[in-house]
Amino acid sequence: MAVNAERFLKDLHDLRGFGASGVGKGVVRPAYSEADVAARRWLASRMEDAGLQVRFDPVGNLFGLAEGPSLLMGSHSDSQPEGGWLDGALGVIAALEVARSAGRPVSVVSFQDEEGRFGVTTGSAIWSGHLPLAEADTLTDHAGVSFGAARAAMAGLAGDFVDPARFTGFVEMHIEQGPTLDTEGEQIGVVSDIVGIRDMKISFRGQQNHAGTTPMHLRRDAFQALSLFNARINDRFRNLVTSRTVWTIGHVALHPNASSIVPGRAQFSMQWRDGDAGRLARMEEIIRDTAHEVARETGMELEFGPLLGLEPVAMDARLKAALETGARDVAPGKWRTMPSGALHDATNVARLMPVAMLFVPSIGGISHDFAEDTDEADLVAGLRVLERAVEALA
Amino acid sequence: MAVNAERFLKDLHDLRGFGASGVGKGVVRPAYSEADVAARRWLASRMEDAGLQVRFDPVGNLFGLAEGPSLLMGSHSDSQPEGGWLDGALGVIAALEVARSAGRPVSVVSFQDEEGRFGVTTGSAIWSGHLPLAEADTLTDHAGVSFGAARAAMAGLAGDFVDPARFTGFVEMHIEQGPTLDTEGEQIGVVSDIVGIRDMKISFRGQQNHAGTTPMHLRRDAFQALSLFNARINDRFRNLVTSRTVWTIGHVALHPNASSIVPGRAQFSMQWRDGDAGRLARMEEIIRDTAHEVARETGMELEFGPLLGLEPVAMDARLKAALETGARDVAPGKWRTMPSGALHDATNVARLMPVAMLFVPSIGGISHDFAEDTDEADLVAGLRVLERAVEALA
Repeated sequence: MAVNAERFLKDLHDLRGFGASGVGKGVVRPAYSEADVAARRWLASRMEDAGLQVRFDPVGNLFGLAEGPSLLMGSHSDSQPEGGWLDGALGVIAALEVARSAGRPVSVVSFQDEEGRFGVTTGSAIWSGHLPLAEADTLTDHAGVSFGAARAAMAGLAGDFVDPARFTGFVEMHIEQGPTLDTEGEQIGVVSDIVGIRDMKISFRGQQNHAGTTPMHLRRDAFQALSLFNARINDRFRNLVTSRTVWTIGHVALHPNASSIVPGRAQFSMQWRDGDAGRLARMEEIIRDTAHEVARETGMELEFGPLLGLEPVAMDARLKAALETGARDVAPGKWRTMPSGALHDATNVARLMPVAMLFVPSIGGISHDFAEDTDEADLVAGLRVLERAVEALA
Repeated sequence: MAVNAERFLKDLHDLRGFGASGVGKGVVRPAYSEADVAARRWLASRMEDAGLQVRFDPVGNLFGLAEGPSLLMGSHSDSQPEGGWLDGALGVIAALEVARSAGRPVSVVSFQDEEGRFGVTTGSAIWSGHLPLAEADTLTDHAGVSFGAARAAMAGLAGDFVDPARFTGFVEMHIEQGPTLDTEGEQIGVVSDIVGIRDMKISFRGQQNHAGTTPMHLRRDAFQALSLFNARINDRFRNLVTSRTVWTIGHVALHPNASSIVPGRAQFSMQWRDGDAGRLARMEEIIRDTAHEVARETGMELEFGPLLGLEPVAMDARLKAALETGARDVAPGKWRTMPSGALHDATNVARLMPVAMLFVPSIGGISHDFAEDTDEADLVAGLRVLERAVEALA
């Protein structure tokens, strides 16, 4: 029995009805919101219809379980506060369609809070053992609501955690969330690895002063230190990075942040990502050395926040080869292997079992925005690649 | 009759009682606050005791008027939200002591809202005709209170505006608010000119994007544009500026200002000050040209806010010579002529009459802070310079 593209697209549009934003195909379906819980109840009924056994775990991860050992497929159905209709929802609905039609046991999952209302890929982080439940319960969202209180809203549905030993592997389809496939006119990306991430707050503390009466040579201007640091790391990274490496200063807070006052303090975020753990470590060295050097030269006190991070994750060779077989058949000459620059639930699930991922294009590279979209022909191509991959694994 | 240093210091300490912060000698006495109005009532009574005719004008500027043509002296008694005990208060109390003891007619003024709760040197700007009253009434503070509503709190005290034609000139004593005198171990600065100021908001608009999935070469990162702009103007200013020129990027707002998102927008303040209007204009050219150049190179949309500014003001030669005479007598070998990098009420009053200014040291260059202070010996030296200058002008 083959996948049914029409039924797949109808399910996808039906899911969009939960939290539809009224702007294009946008959705507002953050984890544990009314729309999110309603969407999960609907998904559970579709899973039941597909002959799967439904299980909500204690944190709201929703499983549709096939009997016996099975391949797990899926992603997440929660959205950003302003999100698109596809994002993780695509991977969940595609998994459901494959489970309905595959000739072998396929289970389906929609992880909870992948978008990080409370943490980072919270639901799969807990399931995989990366994040202890007791610790997760103390996390709070921007409004001060705790994870513990939020998941209580789904307590009536909750059963036990699912034993990961029943799954032979995990395959996640997702939109690319970047411009590569769309720019190149390709339909399918088979993920080679999920890049590792490092994130650190850095602050320079100089001397707050009057911007009229403090001569330039007596200033200890924290913004100038930040600007110099930025220029130097850009220069020093050049000999180390690949075209896949990225680094970002995305958050800057000056103090007191007034036009007539020499900034006494600059706190900023330094984030870098790469598929190679060694390169991530060498970048960290450059960052720390350069910050110390700039602090010395400009008379700053320097403070590093804790180094947060996730290790790079390589995709499983056998699962990846199956996806490549599917891509060759479904989109000949219009696919590539590529790294994932974004985090996904697969990063956590890789602690438990072999994982692989598949991308379809994001039009204009846009994601986490009401304007996120993908050509329906590409969505169906992705579905068919999953179908072929499952056949190839049989 | 000579000035009375003890009476002068006692008045200064008494004035500090209005809005004393409880931290060191700090005061909290912003314009139109209860403490500010109470301080002005107390000042009015001290003026009356000194034989001066008290007049509050419609915006709360307080005058103690000598009969007939007179020299006007003073400054302002409002403070920053967290201010020091001296700042403008010093000039008001010193003027009062000189008016009490001088052998010729000296009037005293305490301007209102020099610290700019509503505008910039608001009270003297209105009195001098630089800022129309109707326009001032629409200005609001950070809490949304209008100037019109705030000055209504003093309406019961208000008489007419004072005719500036009754004054032969204006002399203002103030703390330096910078480190020069303190660093050099000097007691007195005779101001040569008040530097001009230019202030402009600039914004770069690039493309907000996912910090994991957007390759470096496809980014249009507004923070990177800001950092490049900053490095280039620093470099290009070098051949143009003097040791007195200053420039500051004191306010930066990134959007959305999140560690995992490439900044799509950077709005920042660009402020520069110099005693020469031509140099200010050449700096503006460099700023505009460089911003355009960086925007072109980095794919930004560029927007300039309105150019705000005040022209440089030279001190009157005759009044300045009188202060120099005083400085030579009172602090031989321990005084200098110097520009004022800060704005003062004298900037506005210069539109109406000849003006001159005198500085005493700020310990550590600190001002607009509870920790602001000056050695009492230096305060008295400043008082005596004013006394000698008034004698020299007779």
